[in-house]
Amino acid sequence: MTETQVRVNYSETDQMGVVYHARYLVWLDVARCEHIRQAGVSYAELERQGFRLAVGDLRIRYRQPARYDDVVRVRCWVREAVTRRVTFGYALDVPARQVMVATAETGMMVLDARLGVGKLPAEVLALIPAEADPVRLF
Amino acid sequence: MTETQVRVNYSETDQMGVVYHARYLVWLDVARCEHIRQAGVSYAELERQGFRLAVGDLRIRYRQPARYDDVVRVRCWVREAVTRRVTFGYALDVPARQVMVATAETGMMVLDARLGVGKLPAEVLALIPAEADPVRLF
Amino acid sequence: MTETQVRVNYSETDQMGVVYHARYLVWLDVARCEHIRQAGVSYAELERQGFRLAVGDLRIRYRQPARYDDVVRVRCWVREAVTRRVTFGYALDVPARQVMVATAETGMMVLDARLGVGKLPAEVLALIPAEADPVRLF
Amino acid sequence: MTETQVRVNYSETDQMGVVYHARYLVWLDVARCEHIRQAGVSYAELERQGFRLAVGDLRIRYRQPARYDDVVRVRCWVREAVTRRVTFGYALDVPARQVMVATAETGMMVLDARLGVGKLPAEVLALIPAEADPVRLF
Repeated sequence: MTETQVRVNYSETDQMGVVYHARYLVWLDVARCEHIRQAGVSYAELERQGFRLAVGDLRIRYRQPARYDDVVRVRCWVREAVTRRVTFGYALDVPARQVMVATAETGMMVLDARLGVGKLPAEVLALIPAEADPVRLF
Repeated sequence: MTETQVRVNYSETDQMGVVYHARYLVWLDVARCEHIRQAGVSYAELERQGFRLAVGDLRIRYRQPARYDDVVRVRCWVREAVTRRVTFGYALDVPARQVMVATAETGMMVLDARLGVGKLPAEVLALIPAEADPVRLF
Repeated sequence: MTETQVRVNYSETDQMGVVYHARYLVWLDVARCEHIRQAGVSYAELERQGFRLAVGDLRIRYRQPARYDDVVRVRCWVREAVTRRVTFGYALDVPARQVMVATAETGMMVLDARLGVGKLPAEVLALIPAEADPVRLF
Repeated sequence: MTETQVRVNYSETDQMGVVYHARYLVWLDVARCEHIRQAGVSYAELERQGFRLAVGDLRIRYRQPARYDDVVRVRCWVREAVTRRVTFGYALDVPARQVMVATAETGMMVLDARLGVGKLPAEVLALIPAEADPVRLF
């Protein structure tokens, strides 16, 4: 499990005075890239090698709103990884306010450069082993 | 069930050459607002009356990518509606290419102006009855 | 000069209760694409032929805020067009509230598919002649 | 002058394979908030006190494209500050690639909580003195 921090900027808020719900997905993306970077794999490098990880399905539960200037901690881990599909779990909270913001899961499909079905190399898979969920997701 | 059309603009694409997955959530939002507008309820007016509909949980399955300049049809319907919660279903396709793009569900929490628990008035609920799913969602 | 209409969606607002200033640039993009489409050129088709129009410089004056659910009219015209560069002007207002929202100008550089310097074909240039400004921009 | 770093995420790219031009405005916003934070003023706190800084006009020159995973350095400074208006300058580059990405200027209007004309307190103005441009902007 890795931790990534993002500070909420103004563009991420909406007129309800909280973060617009679609913005969370970008944070999941950022956390996912940091997770594999810390595992030794750069997504930019994976792309140059002809691989793509595209979101195939996504589920998110919004618990408490994140707010402007909050520093959100995104915990990210691999739930399951096989050659054609990697599933990530996420838990987002704001430690300074002791608030759980959201939990989520994304199923990533492995694609090739033409967006056809791809296979992740065994040496990459070995770097991102599945872990048990640290929190209940849904 | 209502239908809303959105044309994909350049800002919605990413360097994979397709629509970035988080953008779809904005289309769901637009379709949901059009659905209730056609039912006779303006979300802007609901807000002025002190109601908020906030996404509590969301699930989406990405099937085929939407692309720049595609005209995406978003079919939207209510799956379940009670005073504190309204669940919407969505089916997104690109008729010109005969491609199913995504299916999704959002559970909306009814909140008051301070983002506390709210209750949707019976006369509003009566305007947005639940319907059977026109397609299988997941 | 062409006119394009966009309805403000919730994702475009911020916690100031108005449209976040960066969103206007997407509307300029949409209006620019509609302008050339109405002239008989699809930007999607131009891209397939190996051309890119990239914003080289941009200037915008924000006059009155656009708000959620506003229908914004974007008037768009070509101010100057040469083989390597096309300059567009824009005037954005909300007719229903009789409010001028913004005026803007974007200088577009013509690039080739590798983002090197490109040249727009004479037959394309002929379709998008320069026009006098219908309003004062700055 | 302050420096803020942002790493380009995938949502910020477009199908040209570079950062979509409107995303840069969010980085200017982030850098501006960090600039005043380092000066001892939190924008979140300013808002709570009833002040708003809204972009009144903006000019940006795009020089070389920023790309996915680039770490962009945003230098930010105040060009002019009076009670009703503060003008910021920005220079964006990618040090790792020695590439100047963009230069920009934003004129911020001081507003009150109802978005009427406001005045920035003298003690706030004293914290953000104007500086000479470190680079030529346009």
